[in-house]
Amino acid sequence: MEFVTERKETLLTELCVDKIAHSEIKDDQKVSLKGTIHTIRDMGDVAFVIIRRREGLFQCVYEKSIVSDFSELKEGQAVKISGLIRSEKRAPHGFEILVKEVLIYSTPKKSMPLQISKWKLNTSLEANLDYRAVALRNVRERAVFKIQEGITRGFRDYLYKQGFTEIHTPKLGAKSAEGGANLFKLEYFHKPAILQQSPQFYKQMMVGVFDRVFETAPVFRAEKHNTKRHLNEYTSLDLEMGYIDSMDDIMDIETGFLKYTIELLRKDYKKELDILSVELPEIKEIPRVRFDEIKRLVSERYDRKIKNPYDLEPEEEELIGKYIKEKTGSDFVFVTHYPTKKRPFYAMDDPTDPKFTLSFDLLYKGLEITTGGQRIHDYEELIKKMEKRNMDKEGMEDYLSIFAYGMPPHGGLGIGLERLTMELIGLENIRQATLFPRDQRRLVP
Amino acid sequence: MEFVTERKETLLTELCVDKIAHSEIKDDQKVSLKGTIHTIRDMGDVAFVIIRRREGLFQCVYEKSIVSDFSELKEGQAVKISGLIRSEKRAPHGFEILVKEVLIYSTPKKSMPLQISKWKLNTSLEANLDYRAVALRNVRERAVFKIQEGITRGFRDYLYKQGFTEIHTPKLGAKSAEGGANLFKLEYFHKPAILQQSPQFYKQMMVGVFDRVFETAPVFRAEKHNTKRHLNEYTSLDLEMGYIDSMDDIMDIETGFLKYTIELLRKDYKKELDILSVELPEIKEIPRVRFDEIKRLVSERYDRKIKNPYDLEPEEEELIGKYIKEKTGSDFVFVTHYPTKKRPFYAMDDPTDPKFTLSFDLLYKGLEITTGGQRIHDYEELIKKMEKRNMDKEGMEDYLSIFAYGMPPHGGLGIGLERLTMELIGLENIRQATLFPRDQRRLVP
Repeated sequence: MEFVTERKETLLTELCVDKIAHSEIKDDQKVSLKGTIHTIRDMGDVAFVIIRRREGLFQCVYEKSIVSDFSELKEGQAVKISGLIRSEKRAPHGFEILVKEVLIYSTPKKSMPLQISKWKLNTSLEANLDYRAVALRNVRERAVFKIQEGITRGFRDYLYKQGFTEIHTPKLGAKSAEGGANLFKLEYFHKPAILQQSPQFYKQMMVGVFDRVFETAPVFRAEKHNTKRHLNEYTSLDLEMGYIDSMDDIMDIETGFLKYTIELLRKDYKKELDILSVELPEIKEIPRVRFDEIKRLVSERYDRKIKNPYDLEPEEEELIGKYIKEKTGSDFVFVTHYPTKKRPFYAMDDPTDPKFTLSFDLLYKGLEITTGGQRIHDYEELIKKMEKRNMDKEGMEDYLSIFAYGMPPHGGLGIGLERLTMELIGLENIRQATLFPRDQRRLVP
Repeated sequence: MEFVTERKETLLTELCVDKIAHSEIKDDQKVSLKGTIHTIRDMGDVAFVIIRRREGLFQCVYEKSIVSDFSELKEGQAVKISGLIRSEKRAPHGFEILVKEVLIYSTPKKSMPLQISKWKLNTSLEANLDYRAVALRNVRERAVFKIQEGITRGFRDYLYKQGFTEIHTPKLGAKSAEGGANLFKLEYFHKPAILQQSPQFYKQMMVGVFDRVFETAPVFRAEKHNTKRHLNEYTSLDLEMGYIDSMDDIMDIETGFLKYTIELLRKDYKKELDILSVELPEIKEIPRVRFDEIKRLVSERYDRKIKNPYDLEPEEEELIGKYIKEKTGSDFVFVTHYPTKKRPFYAMDDPTDPKFTLSFDLLYKGLEITTGGQRIHDYEELIKKMEKRNMDKEGMEDYLSIFAYGMPPHGGLGIGLERLTMELIGLENIRQATLFPRDQRRLVP
């Protein structure tokens, strides 16, 4: 018997972009490069073979007098190129590889349905989504999801530093008090079950345990929306924090998260920001303004009648964004004190005027990216509000019990990851910021 | 209109454990401490009020001659204590707070169903799970989930450093090729849908885009297991990597993850490891041994007949763990080359002997914590293997197409987060390592 405890050495240095950028790899150094053939430009005696890897594109020079079997090379092949480094200012990263040998791992059996090697994927959104696993191989398409990764990283890392604990709450449940019509239903070992549309109740329960918690996980909404900014399954960045003095604490945490994340993106995701020509906003402090006040101000400023005093129409949100930008220079604005009748039962009413809640939305360039607020933590107050709304307490015993056993003042927020990605990058449709979107018509791929 | 852009100052310094540990806060400094009253020990003129916060327990001394209304204090109240710091070696963290003022945020309306302030929660697992949101308030119970957080953090942070991209794949799907009977089914806008039991196909698709990907997300299995180590919903730590030379590359990454995570836990989660008296394993290199070979060795060593040559029974896994520990000192072992008939169709057969696959399980102390391996990347080979198994290709067009359009050699693995948590901590039942477990009988809380 042989216990394999050590790896064999690889014969060639695996090319490392960072090393080359820092001049640790010199001209004529032997390297190998594994990747996919992105394009082949045949110039006669010489061909430029561009290799696509996770770090980007790499130029390889194939001199037919040195290497034979050029005819075997095809776009889309997974290959290992061995050769020598050569400085070349015009090539990506400032170098190219003079090919000595090519090992072909696999060859496509069909021709590509989309021209993924083009800089911009010139195709309809429908075709893009139909051939999603191929479309995402395009350098610009995939850059969106690196930025999305940065947002999630920023959220988690900032919250870890603020003493939050990451939690994993169940997505399968027996019943939910909120929006029964918007829940997907299924059978769970002969019992009726639902998919959670939000970790709301669980994250509140966990405030009683960890004081501050967050979760980054899928949520499921059976809403019959068909818009550019709704999905039926999305990734929710959720947080909930206890021992707050007011909802300002929650807005402070969100401001901190956004500042931290914008900085992280600028530092670690510069390449992708450049690929997509994204200009990230500057965040200093984010203005906070009451719902009724900004509604009135916008109505006056843009000479627009208030149609619905209880909610913001999309056009109104846009105008708020415009107004705040003019007055303060900020792309973001917290709109606070939403009317009680438009907020869920657990939202805390403003004690000075219970028609409004201690809740907020965060708008970015006139689009909502977060809903949050302070929650009721007093058992009797919660029960009273549920009764006023004629809500059924059945199935909510576990949630309600945490208040009976004592809860601190608390609040939190939820951010749709795909929507935030879409809006930070400036995409038109949320589906472009989703690897495999789920909407009313789309359950595949 | 007033745009609130700055926070009011809080009057008292929020107590910071780190600052005190580093002697930045001195005796008699005025501090405030928000938390829950864990216990009250009434000594007559003086009472010790222990406050529970996310960082741990804090001792406050309540002198009745200084503060009045002692009778209003109750265990389980959320409070803000204001007072003066005093060094006290016998108190947790080496200090206590001399109470000057107490602000009560909320008072429990019911008496606790479990004695959460006891060091060990002396209750049945059933009662623990029935009152889960309360049980988790116990200091030992919640420590489990801080360690779980550390494992997830370690997984992500290590993989980020290795050039992996985090992905979010859909949990709702139209159909799946694997284990149809083990899928939860639901209706999705009048179409039949399933919950994904694994991100397997999606992470493979994403290897064609990012070369290396990972996901930490829930998976759903309608298996009728009723054991101490199975759940019907769990968090899966999944990775998939392209351009591998062999499955050794995958085992190398897993070894790296485990080393990194053990170190992270020792550094950032020492408090919780101490609370639970966890001794983490030392990891140097993890032995790798063939399935058929170790089966034979264990059979000889422990004089045990091989009943099933295609799979490992739980008892056999235990003996393998024991054998490897004796021979090498390692708590971990990679068992490689599982029989083809027990592995899914996408597993790559060993070209030197197609009865076996290039796949592995990782055992820790005789229990499986990971299944992984190299996958077929050649389109025709994959189709051939599916045909040999009489598999229906319907609904798998998108998955299969990525191979038709070219894929690199690749492989990956999946780790059950709750199982790894359970086994690293040495818990008896996986439900103890799950915030809100879902099994055949349990859909609430």
